[in-house]
Amino acid sequence: MANETIAVSEDILEQHVVAAFRKVGTSEDSLQAATRAMMHASRVGVDSHGVRLTQHYCTMLEGGRLNKNPQLTIEQKGPSSATVDGDDGMGHFAAYRAMSLACELAHETGMAGVGVRRSSHLGAAGAYALAGAEAGFVSFATTNTDSMVPLFGGAAAFHGTNPLAFAAPLSGQRPWLLDMATSSIPMNRVLLYRSLDKDLPHGVAADKSGVPTTNPHEAEMVLPLGGAEYGYKGAALAGVATLLSSVLMGTTLDPDFIPMVGADDIQTPRNMGHFVFAISPDHFAGRAIFESGMIRYVDSLRNAPAREGEELMAPGDREWREATRRGAEGIPVDPDTARFLELSA
Amino acid sequence: MANETIAVSEDILEQHVVAAFRKVGTSEDSLQAATRAMMHASRVGVDSHGVRLTQHYCTMLEGGRLNKNPQLTIEQKGPSSATVDGDDGMGHFAAYRAMSLACELAHETGMAGVGVRRSSHLGAAGAYALAGAEAGFVSFATTNTDSMVPLFGGAAAFHGTNPLAFAAPLSGQRPWLLDMATSSIPMNRVLLYRSLDKDLPHGVAADKSGVPTTNPHEAEMVLPLGGAEYGYKGAALAGVATLLSSVLMGTTLDPDFIPMVGADDIQTPRNMGHFVFAISPDHFAGRAIFESGMIRYVDSLRNAPAREGEELMAPGDREWREATRRGAEGIPVDPDTARFLELSA
Repeated sequence: MANETIAVSEDILEQHVVAAFRKVGTSEDSLQAATRAMMHASRVGVDSHGVRLTQHYCTMLEGGRLNKNPQLTIEQKGPSSATVDGDDGMGHFAAYRAMSLACELAHETGMAGVGVRRSSHLGAAGAYALAGAEAGFVSFATTNTDSMVPLFGGAAAFHGTNPLAFAAPLSGQRPWLLDMATSSIPMNRVLLYRSLDKDLPHGVAADKSGVPTTNPHEAEMVLPLGGAEYGYKGAALAGVATLLSSVLMGTTLDPDFIPMVGADDIQTPRNMGHFVFAISPDHFAGRAIFESGMIRYVDSLRNAPAREGEELMAPGDREWREATRRGAEGIPVDPDTARFLELSA
Repeated sequence: MANETIAVSEDILEQHVVAAFRKVGTSEDSLQAATRAMMHASRVGVDSHGVRLTQHYCTMLEGGRLNKNPQLTIEQKGPSSATVDGDDGMGHFAAYRAMSLACELAHETGMAGVGVRRSSHLGAAGAYALAGAEAGFVSFATTNTDSMVPLFGGAAAFHGTNPLAFAAPLSGQRPWLLDMATSSIPMNRVLLYRSLDKDLPHGVAADKSGVPTTNPHEAEMVLPLGGAEYGYKGAALAGVATLLSSVLMGTTLDPDFIPMVGADDIQTPRNMGHFVFAISPDHFAGRAIFESGMIRYVDSLRNAPAREGEELMAPGDREWREATRRGAEGIPVDPDTARFLELSA
């Protein structure tokens, strides 16, 4: 077994993730959804939400927090609205179902929203927005998550790093894709800087009392996007994720979650909520105008004047470039994950 | 006539704004919408989008850029989607109609989106999100605007300060309300610092080549939310506004607008687009769960531990406090605007 990060081809990696889930008795539809979402994250370079989570999910499936064989219950609430009950399974299964349902409804009505309840961690929210864009829709996905971001001026963690993900189809190209945390950086960036003993940028992390710090060893929380001066915007955007995912769906508020990791309790479901929507370009100015407009917009963005040494990219461009590179060179897998997945170089 | 800022009661101010629009021959429904939106902004302290714009709009109504008697054309595209053609009138009229239509459709379907084309400046996007929340819906409004924000790493203005506004009803209280530019600061903040000869914060403004500067006299653009390190997030959020308002609706892209102010051409309509949506809480976990959840969420936010000297507020709290104060003390009106509106102290 490797003691260093190894590069593994997508196909092999995917087979090993699937095998790990099968070994603990996860149902096929649930494990395929989780694998698809993690492979997306691993492919585009978001390793924190990639295949390294397989071990965590397997632990929770065995502990009972996650249902190995969830049966999704869909309630259509109106022509353009529905809820998905995730039956305490892995969040990926429920979230992909929510997005495909939103697309089906939006195809008929023009725009549709689907909320998820009784779910759990869904990995990268961008995976679901991407699925919507690949189906031809302008799409959105969000979730609330465990508290680790203080409010603007707050002294304790309140919101999660609550992601907002948007995507839009781009004819003949991979989609426009934004998948952003509403904090400036993720918590694992703090851990990386800690291991490197390197100062953090200003205004992105705080000590245990919420006081901003650049010392990664003192940092215990991450701060809302906008930093010391405009962090009220990031905090409010985190609130949008909570409003849609938790308040609208009647699920757990960020500060009330049993922690995803580090909790003794791995038996009790966390009742996490998500929210997605899809918009059909056919129903507004029409598909042809939308498609040519997207190309014109993204071309004008990529070709706008850049500062010296800078390259201008549309949201997603960096990720797709990484996906191309990893497709050729393999996906890096850290030693612990390689061991768990029984991978070798 | 006053040479200093004067405080004017809401009622008197509103009457004078209405009179100014009538004097140039604006239709009653159009001027009532514009007045309502500007009074909202003036009431909550967003003076840049408040009654001071009356003079600008009147100039454009007389110049022909804005249609004095616009006839809105609504096309329902599906059970939860529609477009409003603004007939080149003031944006407020079309945007309020779009939101009321989104609410009507969402009441039936659960969630609905309405796009606007052939519109113009709509003032504060929050005015329309607020209207949705007051009608009982979780609501969203956006528009793209004139270029004045470079891309992350860009050397020229690309996106506008493109606002994202979200609101949600809060039973027995004024709504949760977020109305944010996707730049850190508005351009008029630069002008204020210039007049005060005061250094700007780091990472919020740039010189004519896109290079960040704290010198307000050199600053010619404002930078995306997230600043020098995370500005790619603000730039992408500005892109969300452009995608929904312009690309989906087939209207003018940010860099292609005839400038709102300073252009010789005040005859040609600008074909601005907007987009709004409304979500009915009745169609997800249900109204009762939503209402109690909102109260619990906002209470927990306001009562979360604060750093010394800080007060934690929900989005909108600061604005509603200002509205209460201005309701009692009057709304400040600058000398030029007071002169134009024929107001005296």
